[in-house]
Amino acid sequence: MKFALLQLNLTVGDIDGNAVKIINAVKTAKEQKAELCVTSELALLGYPPRDLLLDQTFIKRAWRKLEEIAEALKDAPPVLIGIAEPNLTGQGRPLYNSAVLLSSGKILNKFHKILLPTYDVFDEARYFEPSFSPQYFELGGTKIGISICEDIWNDKDFWKTKRYDYDPVESLASQNVKCVINLSASPFTIGKQKIREAMLGSIAKKHSIPFLYVNQVGGNDDLVFDGRSCAFDSNGVLTARGKAFSEDILIVDIKSDTGNIYKDDFMPEAELWNALVLGTGDYINKCGFKKAILGLSGGIDSALTAAIAAEAIGKENVTGVLMPSVYSSKGSIEDSLEVAKRIGIKTLTIPIKNIMGVFSDSLKEAFAGLSEDITEENVQSRIRGNLLMALSNKYGAMLLTTGNKSELAVGYCTIYGDMSGGLAVIADVPKIMIYNLANWINKTKNNLIPQAIIDKAPSAELRPNQTDQDSLPPYDVLDAILYRHIELYKSGEEIVAEGFDKKTVEKILNLVGKAEFKRRQAAPGLKVTDRAFGTGWRMPIACKINL
Amino acid sequence: MKFALLQLNLTVGDIDGNAVKIINAVKTAKEQKAELCVTSELALLGYPPRDLLLDQTFIKRAWRKLEEIAEALKDAPPVLIGIAEPNLTGQGRPLYNSAVLLSSGKILNKFHKILLPTYDVFDEARYFEPSFSPQYFELGGTKIGISICEDIWNDKDFWKTKRYDYDPVESLASQNVKCVINLSASPFTIGKQKIREAMLGSIAKKHSIPFLYVNQVGGNDDLVFDGRSCAFDSNGVLTARGKAFSEDILIVDIKSDTGNIYKDDFMPEAELWNALVLGTGDYINKCGFKKAILGLSGGIDSALTAAIAAEAIGKENVTGVLMPSVYSSKGSIEDSLEVAKRIGIKTLTIPIKNIMGVFSDSLKEAFAGLSEDITEENVQSRIRGNLLMALSNKYGAMLLTTGNKSELAVGYCTIYGDMSGGLAVIADVPKIMIYNLANWINKTKNNLIPQAIIDKAPSAELRPNQTDQDSLPPYDVLDAILYRHIELYKSGEEIVAEGFDKKTVEKILNLVGKAEFKRRQAAPGLKVTDRAFGTGWRMPIACKINL
Repeated sequence: MKFALLQLNLTVGDIDGNAVKIINAVKTAKEQKAELCVTSELALLGYPPRDLLLDQTFIKRAWRKLEEIAEALKDAPPVLIGIAEPNLTGQGRPLYNSAVLLSSGKILNKFHKILLPTYDVFDEARYFEPSFSPQYFELGGTKIGISICEDIWNDKDFWKTKRYDYDPVESLASQNVKCVINLSASPFTIGKQKIREAMLGSIAKKHSIPFLYVNQVGGNDDLVFDGRSCAFDSNGVLTARGKAFSEDILIVDIKSDTGNIYKDDFMPEAELWNALVLGTGDYINKCGFKKAILGLSGGIDSALTAAIAAEAIGKENVTGVLMPSVYSSKGSIEDSLEVAKRIGIKTLTIPIKNIMGVFSDSLKEAFAGLSEDITEENVQSRIRGNLLMALSNKYGAMLLTTGNKSELAVGYCTIYGDMSGGLAVIADVPKIMIYNLANWINKTKNNLIPQAIIDKAPSAELRPNQTDQDSLPPYDVLDAILYRHIELYKSGEEIVAEGFDKKTVEKILNLVGKAEFKRRQAAPGLKVTDRAFGTGWRMPIACKINL
Repeated sequence: MKFALLQLNLTVGDIDGNAVKIINAVKTAKEQKAELCVTSELALLGYPPRDLLLDQTFIKRAWRKLEEIAEALKDAPPVLIGIAEPNLTGQGRPLYNSAVLLSSGKILNKFHKILLPTYDVFDEARYFEPSFSPQYFELGGTKIGISICEDIWNDKDFWKTKRYDYDPVESLASQNVKCVINLSASPFTIGKQKIREAMLGSIAKKHSIPFLYVNQVGGNDDLVFDGRSCAFDSNGVLTARGKAFSEDILIVDIKSDTGNIYKDDFMPEAELWNALVLGTGDYINKCGFKKAILGLSGGIDSALTAAIAAEAIGKENVTGVLMPSVYSSKGSIEDSLEVAKRIGIKTLTIPIKNIMGVFSDSLKEAFAGLSEDITEENVQSRIRGNLLMALSNKYGAMLLTTGNKSELAVGYCTIYGDMSGGLAVIADVPKIMIYNLANWINKTKNNLIPQAIIDKAPSAELRPNQTDQDSLPPYDVLDAILYRHIELYKSGEEIVAEGFDKKTVEKILNLVGKAEFKRRQAAPGLKVTDRAFGTGWRMPIACKINL
């Protein structure tokens, strides 16, 4: 009995385009003798549709389109499609998160998601009413259990703590289903596939039931979906795995427990590179752009961002802009030109000395009697932001920001300056990980990043002889503290208890708090860690934390 | 039996400061012979604490502080205090949203919120586990029912649809409580107090039980809390009302059904003015600033923002900055100076002609062969943004943005330009409402806004003879369409069905969608309508809507 897991790159809101993709995939699967096709979660709408879900006409249009799909596929095998379904009980939240079974041109059955995640980036209780009965259907005499994403993530043996009282998988198992299908939209983070496969294998084995997991692929705003749909037999052994970071139609035979196993690369740097490339390309294209620009400072962050952009949308579509000031070192200019040459992108040089001069003149009277401070550094950064946005506007090229997570955490960046742009490509990558990625790129991609860029001391070059470490601890210490605070939710007290210097920890956490106003106005950044700034980090601004 | 409703202006995160406020308020209430004191929801933490709730040390510190409060108030009357409480069951979300009863130096009882809002700006399912048993305690032989905010907002007779299956008030009533206390943190929107009072009166009468409602007051980020705590007798008649937009200790006698009824002004313009003044002042002060600056364009938006800022933090702390370009009319400069004079704020004039010139020179080569377009307008706006931020940085004065909701909706604003700033004071006020407010100000505040500013055609003055209506429909039509789409959640189809021009509606909704990327990077705006951009509007950016 062959099932086809349709691992597609869907666009949020694009019901028409997503329908075409689903129809074509089912037709391809039919040629491969699939007897049941399955999409990812909310596939027809694209995940996450967010507040588009609150537009009733959008939902109605999706259901009209679903009928068209049923008609178009009336001679194809049955297909399970993810869609939001109106809650007509007159009570509770407006929708269900559903999987609808189409067969012979008709809607045959509807299944509802039971467990609704409300942590990290997830807001599902904003839209959906949970259902409380796990469901199955019969296909050729075989009972097939249906679950949607979170429904399978609550096993009391695999996890130390349970998020929810109820375990839909336990309930399905007690109803003697012969396999469990899971429609997912599970965002990528580094190392997550290993956890997914360990968990899927563990619950398949525990319940002695094969599991089939379908994930979407592609970037949607801050989230990257890595695909890697997979199947496990009733012994908990992996029997099939779809491609990583790419569309795939994965055929799984649940009688013979056979399928194609994609040879994956679980190296953190490889995963990170692939995720950033996919997320960047999809964000640019799904926003309607073909070209991108970015500022090249001679530092590692902009070098890396340029390499990612070139891989994502083609080097011919990327322009690096050099905007040297009187504080820019000769090395920075040379290194920028060298990295652009190696990556193969165009460059443009616009010195900002004259603009700085006229700003300084214009502000002379207003600043009379006041000494130089961070203001003058910010003015420079914002002049560059203005030039880059002007080029972006005039060329129709999306501006990419180049800041990393460590900087964004402590506010070592200028709002409306280097923070300007449509997408913050590496905003969730800590500085130490940036170095690891650059070294990996040089090993695997023919030394794209000049060694001089990797070796130099990080500097914003906004005043003479400035380096990041003038005002920050070394990046390995900084990143270790930030990791504990951001990803492990630890307080200063707890971090100090681990042996970190109290003054340093307090200084860093204080900086993190103070920079919240900047992050609130930051461009979306691609999430690659367990907790990224953005939708998974919701902090107050006008507040006072007693340390 | 006298109860004191402690309507306090609390700061998010500031456990120490909030504790002092609560202790002092209880002591004052004791002097007024109160027998029970009640704070607002999560009072010790400040509402909304958002992801600070995920820091376990923060919660632990709050409980240590609660013990100190109990000790400090051991000779005072019992007090109910809002706080988050760890969920120790090892299952479910990490916290309860609780009210804790302190009496004679001890924690006597804990009550949990039952209904957790997950719509609009609310994310309570992110943090809290619901409780399922409504609770009461006895005070001098009287059964007092406890509820927290949303718990009383689910009456099946008052509302057309029920959000939740369960009604905690019905359950409390069935247990024969003699009054129901509600600890709230209910954000202001225009007209909301009338709905609150109608609902409270209706449920008090229906169950023949007096209701006492305590709301916090003050601005916390985008939310403004208007206070107006109140009490209703068992006939549903208002017996007490606290001050609007100001702290108050409201004494209510639930035996004699007497209390002070604050004479409120329900005029929409009066409410709006008071809310914006309170929200602006609190945001500036709670962020640690004392001064503010803003750009004065000669238009009504900046004039109004200046008037609000001056009222909020004192006219001596506000500076208006004129940055005329070659496109600025003589009228704009004169009008800006006149409005600054009437409001009594300082001004500063920095012409931008020279800066524009050098930008133009610097971009000449990159722009060769390309014609002028919106780019040049944006460059101007971003030059102004840079100057304003420089002044903000140098003076330590918060920059206020001056854009209105209609502009922000259709993207008629420049990201990193006029959108720059820490707080978007009138970002949730539609243009037509701006005019109404200006006229109200002139009537009640001695013509603060020059009539010329109200009468002129709105213009960004970024090119010769430009007006907003060159590319937008008249503001009454625009606002009517936006109101239906944003606040009533209507689709284009539904708005056209109401009789609006199809082309106009499609154009407007298309503009709204396209501007999402700007709004994502906008400063927090003070929420005054039923749906504001920001935390209550969560739209995807990289998406495609099939119209």
